[in-house]
Amino acid sequence: MSGEQELGMTKSKEHQTGEWYAELVQKAKLADYAPMGGFIVTRPRGYELWERLQDHLDGWFKETGVQNSYFPVLIPESYLEQEKDIVEGFDPEVAWVTHGGHDELEERLAVRPTSESIITPFMSQWVRSYRDLPLQLNQWCSVIRWEATETKPFFRTKEFLWQEGHTAHATEDDAMDEVMMRLGQYEQLYEDVLAIPVMRGRKPDHDKFPGANKTTTVEALMPDGKSVQGGTSHHLGQSFAEAYDVTFTDEDEEEQTAWTTSWGLSWRALGALIMTHSDDQGLVLPPALAPEQVVVVPIYNDDTREDVLQYANEVAAELQEDGVRVHVDDRDERNPGFKFNEWELKGVPVRFEIGGYEVEDEEVTVVHRPDGEEVVEDRADIVEATNEHLDAVYDKLYEAAEENLEENVREVDEVNEILGTIGQHGGYVKTPWCGDEACEEVVKEKVHAEIVMLPMNEEAEPDADECTMCGDEATEIAYFAKSY
Amino acid sequence: MSGEQELGMTKSKEHQTGEWYAELVQKAKLADYAPMGGFIVTRPRGYELWERLQDHLDGWFKETGVQNSYFPVLIPESYLEQEKDIVEGFDPEVAWVTHGGHDELEERLAVRPTSESIITPFMSQWVRSYRDLPLQLNQWCSVIRWEATETKPFFRTKEFLWQEGHTAHATEDDAMDEVMMRLGQYEQLYEDVLAIPVMRGRKPDHDKFPGANKTTTVEALMPDGKSVQGGTSHHLGQSFAEAYDVTFTDEDEEEQTAWTTSWGLSWRALGALIMTHSDDQGLVLPPALAPEQVVVVPIYNDDTREDVLQYANEVAAELQEDGVRVHVDDRDERNPGFKFNEWELKGVPVRFEIGGYEVEDEEVTVVHRPDGEEVVEDRADIVEATNEHLDAVYDKLYEAAEENLEENVREVDEVNEILGTIGQHGGYVKTPWCGDEACEEVVKEKVHAEIVMLPMNEEAEPDADECTMCGDEATEIAYFAKSY
Repeated sequence: MSGEQELGMTKSKEHQTGEWYAELVQKAKLADYAPMGGFIVTRPRGYELWERLQDHLDGWFKETGVQNSYFPVLIPESYLEQEKDIVEGFDPEVAWVTHGGHDELEERLAVRPTSESIITPFMSQWVRSYRDLPLQLNQWCSVIRWEATETKPFFRTKEFLWQEGHTAHATEDDAMDEVMMRLGQYEQLYEDVLAIPVMRGRKPDHDKFPGANKTTTVEALMPDGKSVQGGTSHHLGQSFAEAYDVTFTDEDEEEQTAWTTSWGLSWRALGALIMTHSDDQGLVLPPALAPEQVVVVPIYNDDTREDVLQYANEVAAELQEDGVRVHVDDRDERNPGFKFNEWELKGVPVRFEIGGYEVEDEEVTVVHRPDGEEVVEDRADIVEATNEHLDAVYDKLYEAAEENLEENVREVDEVNEILGTIGQHGGYVKTPWCGDEACEEVVKEKVHAEIVMLPMNEEAEPDADECTMCGDEATEIAYFAKSY
Repeated sequence: MSGEQELGMTKSKEHQTGEWYAELVQKAKLADYAPMGGFIVTRPRGYELWERLQDHLDGWFKETGVQNSYFPVLIPESYLEQEKDIVEGFDPEVAWVTHGGHDELEERLAVRPTSESIITPFMSQWVRSYRDLPLQLNQWCSVIRWEATETKPFFRTKEFLWQEGHTAHATEDDAMDEVMMRLGQYEQLYEDVLAIPVMRGRKPDHDKFPGANKTTTVEALMPDGKSVQGGTSHHLGQSFAEAYDVTFTDEDEEEQTAWTTSWGLSWRALGALIMTHSDDQGLVLPPALAPEQVVVVPIYNDDTREDVLQYANEVAAELQEDGVRVHVDDRDERNPGFKFNEWELKGVPVRFEIGGYEVEDEEVTVVHRPDGEEVVEDRADIVEATNEHLDAVYDKLYEAAEENLEENVREVDEVNEILGTIGQHGGYVKTPWCGDEACEEVVKEKVHAEIVMLPMNEEAEPDADECTMCGDEATEIAYFAKSY
């Protein structure tokens, strides 16, 4: 029994969120800590979630004109320095290669922290005429940002996996359409695949991507009241095109400077997924991402073993034929209780229990992972029923997350109330803001909350005329929150 | 017209193989040279070939128990040093990260040259009992090996993309079965997907992977007479398991040391693909890997435009429905001759020409890329005919490569004849060998050819009793060749 206890979760999500998350990631075999602080090893069950996420997003990218490519992992320092905002923004976080073999290099090479400064120079070579636009590139890769913070798998790591899209366009509006299309695809990924509602917004000017005209974001609220920046899409204006000379001949044979964008989503999406839906029994996965959507646990004794397994395998084969990812856990050396616990820990959305009674009555007992709801279904309708149950599990996950979000957006118009509300409840506090970074500092210093976004989905006009912090004229509605 | 000339190839494959290859890679938009010597940028059309290759190989891996994962790109120097052969073998080629942000690191970190020394320590944590074996991991990633050689895209680059498989087994035989299964999958990839015949062999002891018991290889002969090491699969014995402490409890509750393997295939496979089939008109792609399998070029004037385009689009739609990747080149601003040249340069296996006559007679003119063979097919049978034509193109490519291979394996039993044969014809020279590295040196010094493999597909017993080089007893048949 000691083995079984070691397998199970011991921490409470509500009371020890950080420890609970760390325990879950390791016990569900998603990731382990690497020997170097800030690095993790992504184990097969964690990596499979990333692969499924990639399949969805990559498919949407390709349907909308994006082409994958691969640029070097190392970038010469002189290339980084060509766009001054990039070098100022990323220089403190760069890992530097200084030696190749036994020799010191003539020029230091940065392990890519992001690839604008190596991709944009090639856009300059490849774009000649308006016919070459838009140029829509993407790469799936890892990047390194040398931040000295505590490691939190998928949320905070020095190396992380992501995709980075880089595009060039003929006009400012075309670039803006691109920015919003990618932000929309990130929203779709969170909402339809990960079952996490998000809010679209833009970052305040002082928190934009270095060199960008505008940084847009999708923000997700975690159960502990903190906001996660789920993915960002940047309108880079002409600053990168000017720095790296991306010009083209337009239809009137005039030379023009291009407009560029970049947009990225990292494995932090997996962190948000784990944090949002899982519970004290372990991982909870939405059906679209789960390696196994249904696990069949046969319940038998020596007399019924053969019949039960045959029935279970037939049911599974039928589901598989329909495209459902199903696994029959037929291990003789483990009892059903052990199996229930293990598959709950692993987050399988739907469990089938099949014993002697089910075989006799031609039924299947179906259990939902999120809330343990149990329903008996007819064997004859099992394929249709299963697809409905998978949809139902998605709905439960999405609705619970949506409820959390709706309950935790609060309008406030006094500084002390901002501090009190965030201190007590977490979540978002929306309040009129003048646009001055100093007014964010007031809140940041007291409760470590910042402006995570200026909303785009709702009216951006402030209700009040005055900035809550300084009393000057308000120009925006700001969403304050603590963040990951 | 000057634009058209710039697009086309100018170098001869036969007479200027190196320049021809470099020109082709750039003009077919597969890759460009990065600013740092030894690095390349993989453009969308090159990367798509890699993605399709990945789809095939990754599918076979998963069908045979492999799980993908992701390990850090940086490896602490002390980890590399734990297995002495690895550090001796790779130390001269490692790119070192010495600084993170503005601070010097306490310990240097290697950009991974290969990942045994970070993966095996985790196998040690994850493997407890015989039930945890085999453990079959793989990752798709980039590695860096700081070699100071001339850059040749896909063949010789300091950074390259590859997959590296790492497995642990209970017995030596299980590990050997794994080694041979992966070698077989590499063979399958080359032969069935890339249309390149390969020979299976093992490397001489002095050329094994550092620390390995045995290194197996698939070797492909290029048209310029050089051999390409197409992929390698290593039996690592227990040296890595001992160095990193990978032990398990067997069925009798005894502690045992595991046996490990590793195996890798890189984008060099794309180099071999390009080099083998392409010609002075440009790229030639086998159907399984081609982004477009069929390009439809409509030939029309103002009167016939509408009818021809409608007919072409209908034909294309029918093929698409059947799963054929087809593109209709309906650009009005380009004439058919220009289009023919462009799609030949890009390597599309089959071209359809559809003009007024084809519409009238309900036919399609079909042209094979490799040899320009032209056949007129009935519109009614076009789907079936297309699949046959795609198979025929594959057969032509494979057979031409096979003929080149068969003509260029020569048995020789005198040293001067080895030198003369390789000097004159290239290709493989097979000859009895005593097993001593010094006897390889004799040939290596004179003609820069080495023992690329000891064959596994044929009888390994030498025909003669004596080593051709020294006259001592021969134990092997050695294949000498120049290599990439």
